Amino acid sequence: MLDYKFSGYSHVKGQKLTDAELSELYEGLKLNDLLHYTHILTGYCGNITFLQRIADVVKDIKQRNPQAIFVCDPVMGDNGHYYCPPDLMPVYRDTIVPLADVLTPNAFELGELTGMQVDTEESCLQAVNKIHALGVRIVVVTSGIEKAQKEGHLNCYTSIREPNGDTVRTRFVFPRLDGAFVGTGDAFTSLLLVRLDDCNGNVAEAVGQVLGSMQALIRRTSEFAQNQVDSNSRAMCELRLIESRKDLLVPQQKFQGERIEI
Amino acid sequence: MLDYKFSGYSHVKGQKLTDAELSELYEGLKLNDLLHYTHILTGYCGNITFLQRIADVVKDIKQRNPQAIFVCDPVMGDNGHYYCPPDLMPVYRDTIVPLADVLTPNAFELGELTGMQVDTEESCLQAVNKIHALGVRIVVVTSGIEKAQKEGHLNCYTSIREPNGDTVRTRFVFPRLDGAFVGTGDAFTSLLLVRLDDCNGNVAEAVGQVLGSMQALIRRTSEFAQNQVDSNSRAMCELRLIESRKDLLVPQQKFQGERIEI
Repeated sequence: MLDYKFSGYSHVKGQKLTDAELSELYEGLKLNDLLHYTHILTGYCGNITFLQRIADVVKDIKQRNPQAIFVCDPVMGDNGHYYCPPDLMPVYRDTIVPLADVLTPNAFELGELTGMQVDTEESCLQAVNKIHALGVRIVVVTSGIEKAQKEGHLNCYTSIREPNGDTVRTRFVFPRLDGAFVGTGDAFTSLLLVRLDDCNGNVAEAVGQVLGSMQALIRRTSEFAQNQVDSNSRAMCELRLIESRKDLLVPQQKFQGERIEI
Repeated sequence: MLDYKFSGYSHVKGQKLTDAELSELYEGLKLNDLLHYTHILTGYCGNITFLQRIADVVKDIKQRNPQAIFVCDPVMGDNGHYYCPPDLMPVYRDTIVPLADVLTPNAFELGELTGMQVDTEESCLQAVNKIHALGVRIVVVTSGIEKAQKEGHLNCYTSIREPNGDTVRTRFVFPRLDGAFVGTGDAFTSLLLVRLDDCNGNVAEAVGQVLGSMQALIRRTSEFAQNQVDSNSRAMCELRLIESRKDLLVPQQKFQGERIEI
């Protein structure tokens, strides 16, 4: 289970996988000749030795298959605050991010990784350029560009650095839905990995579909929570993933991005 | 990971959940007021204290919600041999099975639980009656009734004990597909739980749909394995679950059972 603050529940029990246990599992995959991965996805990580072990795993998989795609969600915090130990940031910046093919920071994480204040569209795109310069081909800024957003809406940005050095940037605007739900970031990056593969490199198309799925998921979750008597209970706010499985597989709504010319 | 013999792989690494760890997780669910389960599903269990702990969990969930449905796959062995420690059998028979609403033994497990030789349709249905007498409403005999099967085919039996004491029995005959794949039992019982809920108590309809999904899954897995150069590799025999997701959600083929009148 995750840390108390992160899970939203008042009690946390159970075990966390240690870096030694991760290494043992990886050793088992190696011994059985099962290391033929095409994609790697990482999310929240709570300590520095585990994060360093993840870097080893990513390097090893990429050495075995140079075509393997690493989608990294550099989960560190939001709204100006860390919810992972802050000493993870330099490891992300110097070791993990340079290995990533796709990075999905929010505004806070993008700012920390680049040492910039990121709150406008302009500063966002400048910071994204710094990420591209570290070797990351695709950057998706998932949320938090406060000064660029209209009331009742959120913005999301995609930026692709082409092999010839050109950069293609797209802005997505979508409705802000009420409620704070745990796990939306994980749902977003998981869907993104699948859609990028489906859409054969068309990042804007992929993100437009992912946002459609996410809107349906959050809307259903929010409506369910509001209809409960005990609507303050954390359990009532769990993402309605199973109930939304059709929207996750085939979104009914698709968002259209707007190309940004600089 | 599972035991070596069971997984089919030459090396086994990683950690098993202990009964103390299960208890701690359950305690966390209790403290956070999350014990509102509608269904319980159990499968392979490798040691006696863990199995006894499962019995405690099932009793507790049923006390909280008497409508909760317990689907139990009493995984013990197949083809005349145990692949769990044999001292689990009396715990299944005396403690676990009487708690089950749905039991899914194969012929070997049915024989061990009832102390009978189960190899004909007649002995199968007699043994199933003994299971009903322990309080189990629905029994699905998944495979292994050797003397009842035609060449190239397998049989599956459902038996429902109605509240008035009547018993409704149905025979399903379906093609035997080549290859030994690990995890088919888990896929079967998981699908069964979902379809029983979908079909609102129509067990024969539910099983007919589950068998349709399973045929598609095994056929796809078998074809994939045969098309690989290194077709002896265990990795090539992994169930093609993701590739079969549509067949699992909505089976294209549905098997029709035949009512057995005694």
